[in-house]
Amino acid sequence: MSLELDWQNIFAECRVNIQKAIEPCLNSCDESQPNLGIGAGGDLMKPADLASESAIVETLRNHEMSFTLISEESGVKKYGAAAEGCYIIVDPIDGTTNLTRRLPFYCTSIAVSSTPYLAGVYAGMVADLVHDQTYMAFTGRGAFCNRKHIQTSNIERLEDACVGLDLNSYKSGLNLDCEKIIQNIRHTRHFGANALEICYVASGITDGFIDLRSKIRTTDVAAGFLMAKEAGATITDQANRPINVALDPKQTLNFIASANSEVHRQILSLLSNDA
Amino acid sequence: MSLELDWQNIFAECRVNIQKAIEPCLNSCDESQPNLGIGAGGDLMKPADLASESAIVETLRNHEMSFTLISEESGVKKYGAAAEGCYIIVDPIDGTTNLTRRLPFYCTSIAVSSTPYLAGVYAGMVADLVHDQTYMAFTGRGAFCNRKHIQTSNIERLEDACVGLDLNSYKSGLNLDCEKIIQNIRHTRHFGANALEICYVASGITDGFIDLRSKIRTTDVAAGFLMAKEAGATITDQANRPINVALDPKQTLNFIASANSEVHRQILSLLSNDA
Repeated sequence: MSLELDWQNIFAECRVNIQKAIEPCLNSCDESQPNLGIGAGGDLMKPADLASESAIVETLRNHEMSFTLISEESGVKKYGAAAEGCYIIVDPIDGTTNLTRRLPFYCTSIAVSSTPYLAGVYAGMVADLVHDQTYMAFTGRGAFCNRKHIQTSNIERLEDACVGLDLNSYKSGLNLDCEKIIQNIRHTRHFGANALEICYVASGITDGFIDLRSKIRTTDVAAGFLMAKEAGATITDQANRPINVALDPKQTLNFIASANSEVHRQILSLLSNDA
Repeated sequence: MSLELDWQNIFAECRVNIQKAIEPCLNSCDESQPNLGIGAGGDLMKPADLASESAIVETLRNHEMSFTLISEESGVKKYGAAAEGCYIIVDPIDGTTNLTRRLPFYCTSIAVSSTPYLAGVYAGMVADLVHDQTYMAFTGRGAFCNRKHIQTSNIERLEDACVGLDLNSYKSGLNLDCEKIIQNIRHTRHFGANALEICYVASGITDGFIDLRSKIRTTDVAAGFLMAKEAGATITDQANRPINVALDPKQTLNFIASANSEVHRQILSLLSNDA
């Protein structure tokens, strides 16, 4: 069996086990769920986050894998004897606030990398835990939703575009200055689960995603970026530089993911100071 | 059978018939769906909008009802001999862009009024057409999701709040100045189906919804406002004035819907010029 097929099956198994593990948390879903301290990424942890992370680790351990876990919740942990060659970058639940509030938008993000840098990611899954859609990508092989090939949209005009925009920057002191974006892009959205929203760009459901809050972490985007790139997206920072940061739960970044180079050019131009 | 029970059953029947009617449109769902001209509310019409409207009208006509239809698509039309006493305010599909793009968020909004003004609305349904949740409200009787009573959240601090925020104002020239909102409210969201997002406030899933674009129409909010009020929400314009406009497909308004008076006070204070 090829490496790709192995990961397809392991990802699918993870999804099943995550869904079982979080089930009890969904029955008591409200903001009164206990907070379990601050995760490695800096957010409050909820029972669903930890249940999902445990399910992922157990699934991989059942396959007798050695790996370095890089998780939004637990931080960096080594499992097995040869943990250096395989980095597993995990956001156990992306959209925890949505889950605890019964907003039907949350997912799990798992990426696999051969190096401790974003550029080493070669396999990824984002599992939409509400809508039975599982996104996977493998370097050089493409991106898939429920095992069917996906690709980005060919919409080229911002006046036809629907773009995700994360403005959540509570008490950050940032001035995100979104006027040009909302005046020049036809539709903006924000569902509150960025890994999944990057997959929407990959599958042509939306035409881009913008997050310039200096808050998003590699655990949120490692799988989504591979998905989007394999599906044809362009991803850079605001200065059009490629993004290759360390896979660290505390590492943050800014990015624009666009369905194609033409949309990307126009979004960057809106964001440039002299536009 | 009471008037309320009648409407409960008729609404439920409408939902079933709408779902059947739009099914063929979902199988070919992408932006390439034909535009069918401009609806009475000013938006492009898609096949799903018209299919849903026809299903609603047919359902009511099968009950031999006389009514004045006030629809986002067809505008104002009279059906039957005594159409004056019963106004049916309809957004056949709220979130048409989401539907055509496979974003799993769209709904139907139907309100019933005894007068051609918002204050006359006495029954309403918002049907989430993706997640099998049907919201209904009846003046003085409360609001319901799948026939269970719902109420707004008791969160009182903006630092704990999750609030819907519609910034979509393509080429409007508006400066919505959202900095204070995003700096002072913990989480903001925008799913792109405002009628449903108002129901999220009603059911305590979110703590408020803000739309100050002078674009939203009574067809979008007539049912949602009743839902939110019956569930305990406070709804006013930015100057804290109650909202009672004519039920006209071209009539637009601004509003803030808050889970409770304390959240409302804080949001209004953020929006006031001297805050």
